[in-house]
Amino acid sequence: MSYSANDDTIAALATAGGTGAIACIRISGRESVKIVSGIFSVRKGSFAESASGKMRRGYIMDSNEPVDEVLAVIFRSPDSYTGEDVVEINCHGSQYIVRKILSLLIENGCRLAKAGEYTQRAFLNGKMDLSQAEAVADLIASSSASAHRVALNQMRGGFSSKLSELRAELLDFVSLIELELDFAEEDVEFADRNRLSELVTRISGDINRLIESFDAGNAIKNGIPVAIVGETNTGKSTLLNLLLHDEKAIVSEIHGTTRDVIEDCINIGGCLFRFMDTAGIRETRDTVETVGIERTFRKIGEASIVLWMVDVKAEKSHVEELAKKILPLTAGKKLILVFNKLDCAEPEDTERQTHLLADSVPDRLFISARRKTNIDLLENAIVEAANLPDTDNRDVIVTSVRHLEALKNARKAIQCVENGLARNIPTDLLTQDIRECMRFLGEITGEISTNEILDNIFGKFCIGK
Amino acid sequence: MSYSANDDTIAALATAGGTGAIACIRISGRESVKIVSGIFSVRKGSFAESASGKMRRGYIMDSNEPVDEVLAVIFRSPDSYTGEDVVEINCHGSQYIVRKILSLLIENGCRLAKAGEYTQRAFLNGKMDLSQAEAVADLIASSSASAHRVALNQMRGGFSSKLSELRAELLDFVSLIELELDFAEEDVEFADRNRLSELVTRISGDINRLIESFDAGNAIKNGIPVAIVGETNTGKSTLLNLLLHDEKAIVSEIHGTTRDVIEDCINIGGCLFRFMDTAGIRETRDTVETVGIERTFRKIGEASIVLWMVDVKAEKSHVEELAKKILPLTAGKKLILVFNKLDCAEPEDTERQTHLLADSVPDRLFISARRKTNIDLLENAIVEAANLPDTDNRDVIVTSVRHLEALKNARKAIQCVENGLARNIPTDLLTQDIRECMRFLGEITGEISTNEILDNIFGKFCIGK
Repeated sequence: MSYSANDDTIAALATAGGTGAIACIRISGRESVKIVSGIFSVRKGSFAESASGKMRRGYIMDSNEPVDEVLAVIFRSPDSYTGEDVVEINCHGSQYIVRKILSLLIENGCRLAKAGEYTQRAFLNGKMDLSQAEAVADLIASSSASAHRVALNQMRGGFSSKLSELRAELLDFVSLIELELDFAEEDVEFADRNRLSELVTRISGDINRLIESFDAGNAIKNGIPVAIVGETNTGKSTLLNLLLHDEKAIVSEIHGTTRDVIEDCINIGGCLFRFMDTAGIRETRDTVETVGIERTFRKIGEASIVLWMVDVKAEKSHVEELAKKILPLTAGKKLILVFNKLDCAEPEDTERQTHLLADSVPDRLFISARRKTNIDLLENAIVEAANLPDTDNRDVIVTSVRHLEALKNARKAIQCVENGLARNIPTDLLTQDIRECMRFLGEITGEISTNEILDNIFGKFCIGK
Repeated sequence: MSYSANDDTIAALATAGGTGAIACIRISGRESVKIVSGIFSVRKGSFAESASGKMRRGYIMDSNEPVDEVLAVIFRSPDSYTGEDVVEINCHGSQYIVRKILSLLIENGCRLAKAGEYTQRAFLNGKMDLSQAEAVADLIASSSASAHRVALNQMRGGFSSKLSELRAELLDFVSLIELELDFAEEDVEFADRNRLSELVTRISGDINRLIESFDAGNAIKNGIPVAIVGETNTGKSTLLNLLLHDEKAIVSEIHGTTRDVIEDCINIGGCLFRFMDTAGIRETRDTVETVGIERTFRKIGEASIVLWMVDVKAEKSHVEELAKKILPLTAGKKLILVFNKLDCAEPEDTERQTHLLADSVPDRLFISARRKTNIDLLENAIVEAANLPDTDNRDVIVTSVRHLEALKNARKAIQCVENGLARNIPTDLLTQDIRECMRFLGEITGEISTNEILDNIFGKFCIGK
């Protein structure tokens, strides 16, 4: 580890900025109790001698002038968030008071904490590994049940323990091989090559499963991309508004109103979906709209789920014509045909559309966006189409690009080992690749880290965390 | 008291909205410990039996699923903010987590707190009087040292003890009179009319001083209004920008650029000033600008301090002509002549302007807004012109319109007593007025209050306070 824990004492507002009833200022470091004691007057006894975790009432004083009546608490090292002595001051949530208390703390020897510095200290003091530290930021940012569940599991060490299993297996492998090396002169093969091969295959499979979980993890964290496509005036914007419970898209009777791709996220059934409303597909000489339509096709490429909106009264031949454009773009994606304007439909319309393109697009729904009919059915269909892994079962899901890169590097190294075993190369070369693999896995938990990696990770945190 | 303390248990986010490292949820009411215990799993022992003020670490659970790792603390009745059993939960500052925990609390029997409901309960449970409760909101809103000091003094009971002094004196008066009434048949005058008269004069003086403090109190709370006036192109907007450290006003070389009155507040020397930039005074046929100039004259009426900007090279006769317009408007206000563009001045310019209007406008300064010369001197002059009472000496300063109204009513009543004493009216009629006076003073501290008054006061608080 190239970072060393700082000796200085840091202070920052830990609650959200702005005015509230309460604000919390957090101080961490060797001098935190001493510095706060110098500006905090408790009614009786000494603040510095307070039991860990005991809230004390008193006044923050600027010389002889009271600044605010507050509650303050000491969390003594090592049983604190950072592992250092931590003091938290709960003051009135006035921006003036927060600034005043922070400046008093600085006058008395604190410095303002940098972004993520508390969590960074927690990592450097061994309170959590790097993947857990990153999960703290994810947890705070999470806005759906599934993203929250994955982040909380990671913060509690779910990913870390999976990685330490892997490392233990790799260590087993290394020790078997190194035993062989020690006796190399005697030309004895201690390591059973078949057993080694089995172990490497298992490790490789585990790493692959983690890598594969990233698609789901990314969807959980950033939202599953859903494109709403179709001809102009089929009700795409009205549907989007309904789903977003908002008036983001401009709804209008005029064909071709929606030219920009409008995006917004919404929680459905505990999952985050990122909806993209797109320009209507239509022959047009309007340049701006042509650009819009090109972007629509690109957006289909980015989506995992495509909702194809069709007017319930549309002619069979016309829809089949459109299908020639749309189906090639949606290969490998989940396509749902949504027949809109059910409120205007005759029985023969729904009958006809039930059989339309039945072979190529099995999923279809009849809705009325205007009358809000069957929107719940559509929402269920979208959640089902997402087909996310069950985050309840505590399977480890990778959500970080940094972790994905490290895992891919680890996979490369383990593939070298596999190849080496197959080609019967000398064991000392195998050991090198195994150690390489362990190094990459160690990057995830921060056993191996550089200043640059740490700055990059903690710089994205907010101040006060 | 017509309000009765509520039996239900309330919950709300107490820290500012938005994302932060920590958020604090506050629960108050008879069932608060029971409700939180039902969703909070501590590592060992029982949360419900925790000592008051002791932070406990554990998980908030939704059935068997962890929602967040949190710290929670019980403040047992009556030693809590509201006087009821209070629990505070410090969770991660994610909006998802906050919503989730609040909904769990509601499922388990809490209801969401209304605006100001915690402080209202503190008042109803006798933890603070009404003027102290109002000071809590002022304290949170205060944005300058002097406003903060006045609010903190009021929250700590400075105003309340002044009022109880007054009430004690009024009670003395009443008991003297009532003693006389008891012996009325015997035709004995127990109450020494001279002593009564002295007492009433003193009370009346005290009430008057409180009423007079309101002007200063209002200036402290809402900012001292300062108007910057002068001809077009004398640098009014440049100066305003300098003072506000901001680019609010559009600065331009074109005469008559500033048409709207632009206002903004800034802290100078611990006081809040509300600066008003105004349209330049100039003969014009432009309708819009004519309106601007009318508004300028109105703004002078609202200001306590007027900065009159003059080009340092301006002709004596020209300035004297302008003085005829400006001086009548600034009677009773503090007027400071500010000669701008010192960087372009010849020695004879400053010499000439030093003597200009020396009798009618004694205060003058030479600055260069463009070069930022002597801006500190100007700031000092503005603070001195404000002539605020020294808030350090803990004199009671009235800042609330509600209190002002009550004091004015109390003054009317005490004036009736004074007149009655002078006219030797029967003592039982005097008693009525004295009681009236006490009733009005009691409105301030809430000894006498109605639902309407309370709703009005606490409805202005934020949720969670």
